[in-house]
Amino acid sequence: MSSERRSRLTPEDRRTQLIVVGVNFLADHPLDELSMDELARRAGVSRALLFHYFESKQGMHRAVVTTARDSLLQATAPDPELEPRERIDDTLRRFAIFVREHRGTFLSLVRGVASGDPTVRALVDESREFNAELLREAFGELGVRDTRAVRVALRAWVSFAEEVFVSLAADQLTDDDELVAFLVRTLDAAVTAARDSDL
Amino acid sequence: MSSERRSRLTPEDRRTQLIVVGVNFLADHPLDELSMDELARRAGVSRALLFHYFESKQGMHRAVVTTARDSLLQATAPDPELEPRERIDDTLRRFAIFVREHRGTFLSLVRGVASGDPTVRALVDESREFNAELLREAFGELGVRDTRAVRVALRAWVSFAEEVFVSLAADQLTDDDELVAFLVRTLDAAVTAARDSDL
Repeated sequence: MSSERRSRLTPEDRRTQLIVVGVNFLADHPLDELSMDELARRAGVSRALLFHYFESKQGMHRAVVTTARDSLLQATAPDPELEPRERIDDTLRRFAIFVREHRGTFLSLVRGVASGDPTVRALVDESREFNAELLREAFGELGVRDTRAVRVALRAWVSFAEEVFVSLAADQLTDDDELVAFLVRTLDAAVTAARDSDL
Repeated sequence: MSSERRSRLTPEDRRTQLIVVGVNFLADHPLDELSMDELARRAGVSRALLFHYFESKQGMHRAVVTTARDSLLQATAPDPELEPRERIDDTLRRFAIFVREHRGTFLSLVRGVASGDPTVRALVDESREFNAELLREAFGELGVRDTRAVRVALRAWVSFAEEVFVSLAADQLTDDDELVAFLVRTLDAAVTAARDSDL
Protein backbone atom coordinates (compact mmCIF):
# COMPACT_ATOMS: atom_id res chain seq x y z
CA MET A 1 0.00 0.00 0.00
CA SER A 2 1.40 3.41 -0.95
CA SER A 3 1.85 6.00 1.76
CA GLU A 4 -0.46 8.24 -0.29
CA ARG A 5 -3.34 5.78 0.05
CA ARG A 6 -2.43 5.17 3.66
CA SER A 7 -2.75 8.82 4.48
CA ARG A 8 -6.36 8.80 3.38
CA LEU A 9 -7.34 6.54 6.25
CA THR A 10 -8.70 8.14 9.37
CA PRO A 11 -6.59 7.56 12.49
CA GLU A 12 -9.31 5.23 13.77
CA ASP A 13 -9.24 3.14 10.57
CA ARG A 14 -5.49 3.11 10.59
CA ARG A 15 -5.45 1.82 14.14
CA THR A 16 -8.01 -0.85 13.27
CA GLN A 17 -5.91 -1.94 10.33
CA LEU A 18 -2.87 -2.35 12.58
CA ILE A 19 -4.91 -4.38 15.06
CA VAL A 20 -6.10 -6.67 12.28
CA VAL A 21 -2.49 -7.35 11.29
CA GLY A 22 -1.87 -8.27 14.93
CA VAL A 23 -4.92 -10.55 15.11
CA ASN A 24 -3.81 -12.30 11.92
CA PHE A 25 -0.40 -12.84 13.51
CA LEU A 26 -2.11 -14.73 16.35
CA ALA A 27 -3.38 -17.29 13.86
CA ASP A 28 0.12 -18.77 13.63
CA HIS A 29 1.99 -17.48 16.65
CA PRO A 30 1.52 -17.03 20.37
CA LEU A 31 0.89 -13.56 21.71
CA ASP A 32 4.27 -13.26 23.40
CA GLU A 33 6.01 -13.38 20.01
CA LEU A 34 4.13 -10.28 18.89
CA SER A 35 6.68 -7.53 19.50
CA MET A 36 6.39 -3.95 18.31
CA ASP A 37 9.18 -4.70 15.83
CA GLU A 38 7.32 -7.69 14.45
CA LEU A 39 4.06 -5.80 14.03
CA ALA A 40 5.86 -2.83 12.48
CA ARG A 41 7.53 -5.14 9.97
CA ARG A 42 4.30 -6.94 9.08
CA ALA A 43 2.25 -3.79 8.81
CA GLY A 44 5.01 -1.96 6.92
CA VAL A 45 4.99 0.97 9.30
CA SER A 46 7.48 2.46 11.72
CA ARG A 47 7.78 1.53 15.36
CA ALA A 48 7.17 5.18 16.12
CA LEU A 49 3.74 4.99 14.50
CA LEU A 50 2.86 1.93 16.60
CA PHE A 51 3.88 3.75 19.75
CA HIS A 52 1.78 6.67 18.60
CA TYR A 53 -1.29 4.44 18.31
CA PHE A 54 -0.77 2.02 21.20
CA GLU A 55 1.67 3.77 23.55
CA SER A 56 3.35 0.52 24.52
CA LYS A 57 3.67 -3.12 23.58
CA GLN A 58 1.27 -3.85 26.41
CA GLY A 59 -1.26 -1.42 24.95
CA MET A 60 -0.90 -3.09 21.55
CA HIS A 61 -1.34 -6.57 23.06
CA ARG A 62 -4.49 -5.46 24.85
CA ALA A 63 -5.97 -4.01 21.68
CA VAL A 64 -5.16 -7.14 19.65
CA VAL A 65 -6.48 -9.56 22.28
CA THR A 66 -9.65 -7.53 22.79
CA THR A 67 -10.38 -7.65 19.07
CA ALA A 68 -9.61 -11.37 18.77
CA ARG A 69 -11.73 -12.14 21.81
CA ASP A 70 -14.63 -10.04 20.55
CA SER A 71 -14.54 -11.78 17.18
CA LEU A 72 -14.98 -15.09 19.00
CA LEU A 73 -17.77 -13.72 21.19
CA GLN A 74 -19.55 -12.29 18.15
CA ALA A 75 -19.21 -15.49 16.16
CA THR A 76 -20.73 -17.42 19.04
CA ALA A 77 -23.26 -14.87 20.28
CA PRO A 78 -26.48 -16.65 21.21
CA ASP A 79 -29.39 -16.33 18.84
CA PRO A 80 -32.18 -14.73 20.90
CA GLU A 81 -34.82 -16.23 18.62
CA LEU A 82 -34.01 -19.72 19.83
CA GLU A 83 -35.38 -21.52 22.86
CA PRO A 84 -32.78 -22.09 25.60
CA ARG A 85 -31.94 -25.70 24.65
CA GLU A 86 -31.55 -24.94 20.97
CA ARG A 87 -29.67 -21.76 21.85
CA ILE A 88 -27.06 -23.70 23.82
CA ASP A 89 -26.68 -26.28 21.03
CA ASP A 90 -26.43 -23.60 18.38
CA THR A 91 -23.85 -21.60 20.34
CA LEU A 92 -21.69 -24.67 20.92
CA ARG A 93 -21.94 -25.61 17.27
CA ARG A 94 -20.78 -22.16 16.21
CA PHE A 95 -18.01 -22.37 18.77
CA ALA A 96 -16.84 -25.59 17.13
CA ILE A 97 -16.96 -23.92 13.72
CA PHE A 98 -14.95 -20.94 14.99
CA VAL A 99 -12.33 -23.21 16.51
CA ARG A 100 -12.04 -25.19 13.28
CA GLU A 101 -11.82 -22.10 11.07
CA HIS A 102 -9.65 -20.00 13.39
CA ARG A 103 -7.76 -22.69 15.22
CA GLY A 104 -4.58 -20.69 15.73
CA THR A 105 -6.42 -17.61 16.93
CA PHE A 106 -8.45 -19.66 19.36
CA LEU A 107 -5.34 -21.32 20.78
CA SER A 108 -3.55 -17.97 21.03
CA LEU A 109 -6.53 -16.56 22.88
CA VAL A 110 -6.73 -19.39 25.36
CA ARG A 111 -2.98 -19.26 25.82
CA GLY A 112 -3.36 -15.48 26.13
CA VAL A 113 -4.64 -16.21 29.59
CA ALA A 114 -1.07 -17.27 30.11
CA SER A 115 0.15 -13.78 29.38
CA GLY A 116 2.43 -12.17 31.94
CA ASP A 117 0.19 -9.10 31.70
CA PRO A 118 -2.71 -9.27 34.19
CA THR A 119 -4.83 -7.01 31.98
CA VAL A 120 -4.51 -9.38 29.03
CA ARG A 121 -5.42 -12.29 31.30
CA ALA A 122 -8.43 -10.36 32.56
CA LEU A 123 -9.59 -9.78 28.96
CA VAL A 124 -9.69 -13.51 28.33
CA ASP A 125 -11.13 -14.28 31.77
CA GLU A 126 -13.95 -11.87 31.01
CA SER A 127 -15.04 -13.93 28.05
CA ARG A 128 -15.21 -17.05 30.25
CA GLU A 129 -17.25 -15.14 32.76
CA PHE A 130 -19.46 -13.91 29.95
CA ASN A 131 -20.03 -17.41 28.59
CA ALA A 132 -20.85 -18.71 32.06
CA GLU A 133 -23.35 -15.85 32.38
CA LEU A 134 -25.05 -16.81 29.10
CA LEU A 135 -25.42 -20.37 30.36
CA ARG A 136 -26.86 -19.12 33.63
CA GLU A 137 -29.48 -17.22 31.70
CA ALA A 138 -30.35 -20.20 29.55
CA PHE A 139 -30.61 -22.55 32.53
CA GLY A 140 -32.55 -19.92 34.42
CA GLU A 141 -35.11 -19.99 31.60
CA LEU A 142 -35.15 -23.75 31.96
CA GLY A 143 -36.12 -23.33 35.60
CA VAL A 144 -32.75 -24.02 37.23
CA ARG A 145 -32.33 -22.00 40.40
CA ASP A 146 -29.34 -19.67 40.45
CA THR A 147 -27.38 -21.01 43.43
CA ARG A 148 -23.72 -20.73 44.25
CA ALA A 149 -23.28 -24.38 43.32
CA VAL A 150 -24.82 -23.79 39.88
CA ARG A 151 -22.65 -20.74 39.28
CA VAL A 152 -19.51 -22.62 40.30
CA ALA A 153 -20.49 -25.56 38.09
CA LEU A 154 -21.14 -23.37 35.05
CA ARG A 155 -17.88 -21.47 35.38
CA ALA A 156 -16.00 -24.72 35.80
CA TRP A 157 -17.81 -26.25 32.85
CA VAL A 158 -16.74 -23.32 30.64
CA SER A 159 -13.14 -24.27 31.49
CA PHE A 160 -14.00 -27.90 30.76
CA ALA A 161 -15.38 -27.01 27.33
CA GLU A 162 -12.42 -24.77 26.56
CA GLU A 163 -10.04 -27.61 27.39
CA VAL A 164 -12.02 -29.99 25.17
CA PHE A 165 -11.72 -27.51 22.30
CA VAL A 166 -8.00 -27.05 22.95
CA SER A 167 -7.39 -30.82 23.02
CA LEU A 168 -9.35 -31.43 19.86
CA ALA A 169 -8.09 -28.34 18.03
CA ALA A 170 -4.50 -29.45 18.60
CA ASP A 171 -5.40 -32.67 16.85
CA GLN A 172 -8.43 -32.33 14.64
CA LEU A 173 -11.99 -31.42 15.50
CA THR A 174 -14.35 -34.31 15.03
CA ASP A 175 -17.88 -34.35 13.84
CA ASP A 176 -19.72 -31.30 15.19
CA ASP A 177 -22.84 -33.26 16.14
CA GLU A 178 -20.80 -35.68 18.18
CA LEU A 179 -18.88 -32.88 19.85
CA VAL A 180 -21.97 -30.82 20.69
CA ALA A 181 -23.76 -33.89 22.04
CA PHE A 182 -20.77 -34.74 24.23
CA LEU A 183 -20.48 -31.19 25.57
CA VAL A 184 -24.21 -30.87 26.27
CA ARG A 185 -24.23 -34.15 28.16
CA THR A 186 -21.38 -33.06 30.40
CA LEU A 187 -22.98 -29.63 30.85
CA ASP A 188 -26.29 -31.13 31.91
CA ALA A 189 -24.53 -33.50 34.27
CA ALA A 190 -22.62 -30.63 35.89
CA VAL A 191 -25.80 -28.63 36.34
CA THR A 192 -27.70 -31.63 37.71
CA ALA A 193 -24.90 -32.41 40.17
CA ALA A 194 -24.90 -28.74 41.24
CA ARG A 195 -28.70 -28.64 41.69
CA ASP A 196 -28.50 -31.57 44.05
CA SER A 197 -25.55 -30.11 45.93
CA ASP A 198 -25.16 -27.77 48.88
CA LEU A 199 -21.78 -26.79 47.54
CA MET B 1 19.83 -16.53 61.82
CA SER B 2 23.51 -15.71 62.34
CA SER B 3 25.87 -15.93 59.41
CA GLU B 4 27.86 -18.41 61.46
CA ARG B 5 24.95 -20.80 61.64
CA ARG B 6 24.12 -20.11 58.02
CA SER B 7 27.57 -21.10 56.91
CA ARG B 8 27.09 -24.57 58.36
CA LEU B 9 24.45 -25.38 55.80
CA THR B 10 25.46 -27.25 52.71
CA PRO B 11 24.89 -25.36 49.45
CA GLU B 12 22.03 -27.75 48.71
CA ASP B 13 20.35 -27.02 52.07
CA ARG B 14 20.93 -23.33 51.62
CA ARG B 15 19.26 -23.41 48.23
CA THR B 16 16.33 -25.39 49.61
CA GLN B 17 15.94 -22.85 52.40
CA LEU B 18 15.76 -20.01 49.89
CA ILE B 19 13.18 -21.90 47.85
CA VAL B 20 11.05 -22.41 50.96
CA VAL B 21 11.08 -18.66 51.60
CA GLY B 22 9.86 -18.23 48.01
CA VAL B 23 7.13 -20.86 48.40
CA ASN B 24 5.94 -19.17 51.60
CA PHE B 25 5.78 -15.89 49.71
CA LEU B 26 3.33 -17.52 47.26
CA ALA B 27 0.88 -18.08 50.11
CA ASP B 28 0.02 -14.37 50.08
CA HIS B 29 1.26 -13.04 46.77
CA PRO B 30 1.19 -13.93 43.10
CA LEU B 31 4.34 -15.26 41.49
CA ASP B 32 4.97 -12.15 39.41
CA GLU B 33 5.55 -10.13 42.59
CA LEU B 34 8.40 -12.39 43.62
CA SER B 35 11.44 -10.42 42.49
CA MET B 36 15.05 -11.20 43.35
CA ASP B 37 15.04 -8.10 45.59
CA GLU B 38 11.97 -9.28 47.44
CA LEU B 39 13.34 -12.75 48.01
CA ALA B 40 16.72 -11.36 49.07
CA ARG B 41 14.99 -9.10 51.60
CA ARG B 42 12.82 -11.87 53.00
CA ALA B 43 15.62 -14.40 53.20
CA GLY B 44 18.05 -11.83 54.59
CA VAL B 45 20.64 -12.58 51.95
CA SER B 46 22.26 -10.62 49.14
CA ARG B 47 20.97 -10.52 45.60
CA ALA B 48 24.36 -11.80 44.56
CA LEU B 49 23.79 -14.96 46.55
CA LEU B 50 20.44 -15.50 44.86
CA PHE B 51 22.02 -15.11 41.46
CA HIS B 52 24.68 -17.56 42.53
CA TYR B 53 22.03 -20.18 43.39
CA PHE B 54 19.41 -19.49 40.69
CA GLU B 55 21.28 -17.63 37.96
CA SER B 56 18.22 -15.51 37.11
CA LYS B 57 14.81 -14.50 38.36
CA GLN B 58 13.40 -16.99 35.88
CA GLY B 59 15.54 -19.75 37.38
CA MET B 60 14.35 -18.78 40.86
CA HIS B 61 10.70 -18.77 39.75
CA ARG B 62 11.09 -22.22 38.23
CA ALA B 63 12.63 -23.62 41.39
CA VAL B 64 9.92 -22.11 43.60
CA VAL B 65 7.03 -23.23 41.37
CA THR B 66 8.47 -26.73 41.03
CA THR B 67 8.66 -27.09 44.82
CA ALA B 68 5.16 -25.65 45.39
CA ARG B 69 3.74 -27.91 42.69
CA ASP B 70 5.48 -30.98 44.06
CA SER B 71 4.17 -30.27 47.55
CA LEU B 72 0.64 -30.31 46.10
CA LEU B 73 1.31 -33.49 44.14
CA GLN B 74 2.78 -35.19 47.20
CA ALA B 75 -0.09 -34.12 49.44
CA THR B 76 -2.55 -35.57 46.95
CA ALA B 77 -0.59 -38.60 45.77
CA PRO B 78 -2.95 -41.55 45.39
CA ASP B 79 -2.79 -44.22 48.04
CA PRO B 80 -1.87 -47.42 46.17
CA GLU B 81 -3.50 -49.55 48.87
CA LEU B 82 -6.94 -48.29 47.92
CA GLU B 83 -9.28 -49.63 45.27
CA PRO B 84 -9.75 -47.24 42.30
CA ARG B 85 -13.05 -45.73 43.49
CA GLU B 86 -11.82 -45.12 47.03
CA ARG B 87 -8.52 -43.89 45.63
CA ILE B 88 -10.23 -41.19 43.58
CA ASP B 89 -12.39 -40.12 46.54
CA ASP B 90 -9.41 -40.06 48.86
CA THR B 91 -7.27 -38.04 46.45
CA LEU B 92 -10.02 -35.48 45.91
CA ARG B 93 -10.56 -35.22 49.64
CA ARG B 94 -6.87 -34.56 50.23
CA PHE B 95 -6.93 -32.04 47.39
CA ALA B 96 -9.73 -30.19 49.20
CA ILE B 97 -7.71 -30.25 52.42
CA PHE B 98 -4.63 -28.91 50.65
CA VAL B 99 -6.62 -26.09 49.07
CA ARG B 100 -8.14 -25.17 52.42
CA GLU B 101 -4.83 -25.27 54.27
CA HIS B 102 -2.70 -23.72 51.54
CA ARG B 103 -5.24 -21.59 49.78
CA GLY B 104 -2.84 -18.86 48.70
CA THR B 105 -0.24 -21.30 47.43
CA PHE B 106 -2.86 -23.18 45.46
CA LEU B 107 -4.16 -19.99 43.86
CA SER B 108 -0.62 -18.82 43.09
CA LEU B 109 0.09 -22.16 41.47
CA VAL B 110 -3.02 -22.11 39.31
CA ARG B 111 -2.34 -18.50 38.43
CA GLY B 112 1.25 -19.54 37.80
CA VAL B 113 -0.05 -21.01 34.59
CA ALA B 114 -0.58 -17.39 33.74
CA SER B 115 3.12 -16.71 34.00
CA GLY B 116 4.77 -14.98 31.08
CA ASP B 117 7.44 -17.67 31.26
CA PRO B 118 6.54 -20.72 29.13
CA THR B 119 8.69 -22.97 31.34
CA VAL B 120 6.74 -21.99 34.46
CA ARG B 121 3.49 -22.61 32.59
CA ALA B 122 4.77 -25.98 31.51
CA LEU B 123 5.57 -26.89 35.13
CA VAL B 124 1.96 -26.31 36.13
CA ASP B 125 0.58 -27.90 32.97
CA GLU B 126 2.59 -31.00 33.81
CA SER B 127 0.72 -31.43 37.06
CA ARG B 128 -2.61 -31.32 35.21
CA GLU B 129 -1.34 -33.87 32.78
CA PHE B 130 -0.14 -35.98 35.68
CA ASN B 131 -3.52 -35.82 37.45
CA ALA B 132 -5.33 -36.75 34.23
CA GLU B 133 -2.96 -39.69 33.92
CA LEU B 134 -3.77 -40.90 37.45
CA LEU B 135 -7.46 -40.77 36.60
CA ARG B 136 -6.82 -42.72 33.40
CA GLU B 137 -5.15 -45.42 35.43
CA ALA B 138 -7.99 -45.55 37.95
CA PHE B 139 -10.66 -45.72 35.27
CA GLY B 140 -8.58 -48.24 33.37
CA GLU B 141 -8.73 -50.49 36.44
CA LEU B 142 -12.48 -49.92 36.46
CA GLY B 143 -12.64 -51.28 32.93
CA VAL B 144 -12.97 -48.03 31.00
CA ARG B 145 -11.30 -48.27 27.61
CA ASP B 146 -8.55 -45.74 27.00
CA THR B 147 -9.91 -43.88 23.96
CA ARG B 148 -9.16 -40.41 22.69
CA ALA B 149 -12.57 -39.27 23.95
CA VAL B 150 -11.83 -40.56 27.45
CA ARG B 151 -8.43 -38.88 27.48
CA VAL B 152 -9.91 -35.58 26.30
CA ALA B 153 -12.69 -35.84 28.89
CA LEU B 154 -10.29 -36.55 31.75
CA ARG B 155 -7.95 -33.69 30.87
CA ALA B 156 -10.90 -31.33 30.56
CA TRP B 157 -12.33 -32.57 33.83
CA VAL B 158 -9.05 -31.80 35.61
CA SER B 159 -9.51 -28.18 34.44
CA PHE B 160 -13.12 -28.35 35.62
CA ALA B 161 -12.08 -29.52 39.08
CA GLU B 162 -9.33 -26.91 39.28
CA GLU B 163 -11.83 -24.18 38.46
CA VAL B 164 -14.22 -25.51 41.12
CA PHE B 165 -11.41 -25.36 43.69
CA VAL B 166 -10.46 -21.85 42.58
CA SER B 167 -14.07 -20.62 42.80
CA LEU B 168 -14.62 -22.13 46.20
CA ALA B 169 -11.18 -21.23 47.58
CA ALA B 170 -11.76 -17.57 46.73
CA ASP B 171 -14.86 -17.75 48.85
CA GLN B 172 -14.76 -20.58 51.34
CA LEU B 173 -14.53 -24.28 50.84
CA THR B 174 -17.67 -26.08 51.83
CA ASP B 175 -18.12 -29.41 53.43
CA ASP B 176 -15.58 -31.86 52.01
CA ASP B 177 -18.08 -34.70 51.62
CA GLU B 178 -20.38 -32.48 49.60
CA LEU B 179 -17.52 -31.25 47.45
CA VAL B 180 -16.07 -34.71 46.79
CA ALA B 181 -19.52 -36.07 45.95
CA PHE B 182 -20.13 -33.22 43.52
CA LEU B 183 -16.76 -33.66 41.83
CA VAL B 184 -17.12 -37.43 41.53
CA ARG B 185 -20.56 -37.09 39.96
CA THR B 186 -19.29 -34.70 37.32
CA LEU B 187 -16.23 -36.89 36.73
CA ASP B 188 -18.35 -39.98 36.22
CA ALA B 189 -20.66 -38.08 33.90
CA ALA B 190 -17.73 -36.86 31.80
CA VAL B 191 -16.32 -40.37 31.53
CA THR B 192 -19.72 -41.85 30.69
CA ALA B 193 -20.32 -39.22 28.01
CA ALA B 194 -16.87 -39.94 26.60
CA ARG B 195 -17.40 -43.71 26.57
CA ASP B 196 -20.52 -43.26 24.51
CA SER B 197 -18.85 -40.81 22.17
CA ASP B 198 -16.83 -41.08 18.98
CA LEU B 199 -15.17 -37.82 19.81
